[in-house]
Amino acid sequence: MVFFSDAVVAIAMTLLILPLMESVAEGGGEGLTAADWAAEHGDQLLGFGISFVLVAIFWRWHHGFFDRVRRSTPTLMRWNFAWLLLIVWLPVATALSTVEGGDASNVIVYVTTIAAVPLVSAVIHLHVVRHPGLVDEDRPLDPRGLAANVSLVILLVAALALALLLPDVGYLALLLAAATPLMVRVLHRPLARLVHER
Amino acid sequence: MVFFSDAVVAIAMTLLILPLMESVAEGGGEGLTAADWAAEHGDQLLGFGISFVLVAIFWRWHHGFFDRVRRSTPTLMRWNFAWLLLIVWLPVATALSTVEGGDASNVIVYVTTIAAVPLVSAVIHLHVVRHPGLVDEDRPLDPRGLAANVSLVILLVAALALALLLPDVGYLALLLAAATPLMVRVLHRPLARLVHER
Amino acid sequence: MVFFSDAVVAIAMTLLILPLMESVAEGGGEGLTAADWAAEHGDQLLGFGISFVLVAIFWRWHHGFFDRVRRSTPTLMRWNFAWLLLIVWLPVATALSTVEGGDASNVIVYVTTIAAVPLVSAVIHLHVVRHPGLVDEDRPLDPRGLAANVSLVILLVAALALALLLPDVGYLALLLAAATPLMVRVLHRPLARLVHER
Amino acid sequence: MVFFSDAVVAIAMTLLILPLMESVAEGGGEGLTAADWAAEHGDQLLGFGISFVLVAIFWRWHHGFFDRVRRSTPTLMRWNFAWLLLIVWLPVATALSTVEGGDASNVIVYVTTIAAVPLVSAVIHLHVVRHPGLVDEDRPLDPRGLAANVSLVILLVAALALALLLPDVGYLALLLAAATPLMVRVLHRPLARLVHER
Repeated sequence: MVFFSDAVVAIAMTLLILPLMESVAEGGGEGLTAADWAAEHGDQLLGFGISFVLVAIFWRWHHGFFDRVRRSTPTLMRWNFAWLLLIVWLPVATALSTVEGGDASNVIVYVTTIAAVPLVSAVIHLHVVRHPGLVDEDRPLDPRGLAANVSLVILLVAALALALLLPDVGYLALLLAAATPLMVRVLHRPLARLVHER
Repeated sequence: MVFFSDAVVAIAMTLLILPLMESVAEGGGEGLTAADWAAEHGDQLLGFGISFVLVAIFWRWHHGFFDRVRRSTPTLMRWNFAWLLLIVWLPVATALSTVEGGDASNVIVYVTTIAAVPLVSAVIHLHVVRHPGLVDEDRPLDPRGLAANVSLVILLVAALALALLLPDVGYLALLLAAATPLMVRVLHRPLARLVHER
Repeated sequence: MVFFSDAVVAIAMTLLILPLMESVAEGGGEGLTAADWAAEHGDQLLGFGISFVLVAIFWRWHHGFFDRVRRSTPTLMRWNFAWLLLIVWLPVATALSTVEGGDASNVIVYVTTIAAVPLVSAVIHLHVVRHPGLVDEDRPLDPRGLAANVSLVILLVAALALALLLPDVGYLALLLAAATPLMVRVLHRPLARLVHER
Repeated sequence: MVFFSDAVVAIAMTLLILPLMESVAEGGGEGLTAADWAAEHGDQLLGFGISFVLVAIFWRWHHGFFDRVRRSTPTLMRWNFAWLLLIVWLPVATALSTVEGGDASNVIVYVTTIAAVPLVSAVIHLHVVRHPGLVDEDRPLDPRGLAANVSLVILLVAALALALLLPDVGYLALLLAAATPLMVRVLHRPLARLVHER
């Protein structure tokens, strides 16, 4: 399952570049300098960059996590496919986020998608915590993984609210996600206690 | 062979998203809100969702099955390539199923494709059952796998008949596939007896 | 290197389907029944089928061969990349072979491409035969592999000549490749003797 | 991480062929002979060939290098993702390099991209040299790898300067990269001394 997931993520990561390739192909007829092209597709370039970094972050968690899971359950598999569905969907959400003439709905689709990935990650983390037999005993789960995912969800939802309230800010609101390490420090202990009490 | 098949399935799964990506790229010129786009491409979104879930189900069987097969034969390899051909073909059949202006032939192509996958899976299962040397002795095949595939073929053929007879029902007929667990319980024993007698 | 090559072949195999996906997308505007589409793109469907089968055959040789190679040399790597280049190029040659308004040059490009793959395979086989240290001692190379590749080259070159001399025959000439097993029986011994004498 | 990187490189390598596939699809309507097509897209064919060879060279270094790295650090992972970002970006830069009507900016984008890959490779090499615990003790790093990457950066920057000063030379300036083995012989020792002194 790790291998299959890795392959899907690798392909989705590469799909992110497709809209840029097509825009070069389309512009080809009338003479296209790279400088003009970059100026015209600045938004798309930025969108590609952001999504690439996000997929890299998501993959790092996924890879590190499943490296410690030695057995699978049907439920775990189902959640993993939900996670993959979001990753495969991400290139479309990215394309929508940078298309001309978009409105608030484009922002909502994009930010909801990237907030849903750590949400599903957190669900997967909780599922595995409650089924300790799934984990390799010598290599326990990183307890900070849960806090990192929950923090990312909260910050991305906050970014969405900010982007909708202040349209001028737009995708710059995503910079809130940079506060994840800070939020992890705050959330780590209360979350760990909550999980262990249940 | 498992690795190669996994890679092909992962790529085909990701190809399913391509028509949606292209529709965003094409709509880009005239100003495109995500809400309008989703309303206009609702059928395509649904088709993508259904095919994604189906490929996930098909892959789970394939992965679990070949995990127990330790040797290969030329015949097994040929059937595996037939299986992969159907998986690679599935994104085209999906695109045809949701294209505007389709008729019964579009439904036939799509549902026949997705019914052919478990049919080939059942053939592969039977081939391996008759050549016990191919299987890892400590990890026998899941005997319910055959019943699951046969059930899925029957239910999808029934769904095709229903969709053709009652055009208003359309792809909703595919919900019949949800009855697979029920049908497995009915078919499991008689099928197992049939296979062992031969 | 096996893994990387497998991934490239898997992707190229899936790229073969892209022209068919695009033709569905383009036909989408004016209402498209699957029956009309299939009638109109019969050539493309056939071309996809032939190339898919050929890639499957090529991959089987490649996979079985490199499974027995335990070490690599810079020369071997270079030839392997030449082999991969041909595989990645094959989807373009396939698209050219079925495009409307083609002439003899389209046939030449396509058949030369598919004949070049077993030619490079034969070169790789000879390179490894001359460097016995590269092969796993317990699992010697299949000596028929060389004869199979040489036979395929000869038959495909013959098919090219036939297709150019009798344009009505066209790609049907590729059926000559079905004579490979026969030709292997003829070529196997003289080739084996030739290789060992050197 | 090796597996994931391999998959990304394999996909990017295959993406290089996409603009050629699309040009066949677009030319399809009006009747297209392979000879005309090749004559018209000679630049694109050359660009594809050059980038394919470059990715092959980049991958060989990456694969050989990480084969000897047994542990990872967050910094190493970040640099590896920067490396992958450049590889995924390369097909776009290639498309820009051969598009009609380009100017100096197209040359700058393309050559800067292909020079940035060995630059990041050199940074990765230095990072691992300074953290000896990351490397498999029995299989030390190839000390020439650093010199090879640094040489390639210098020669590609020189090629860029040449191409900008003498527009008639154009991408032929990239042939300078063929002098890499020569330059490695010159740079190898002073570089090795520099690294060890630090």
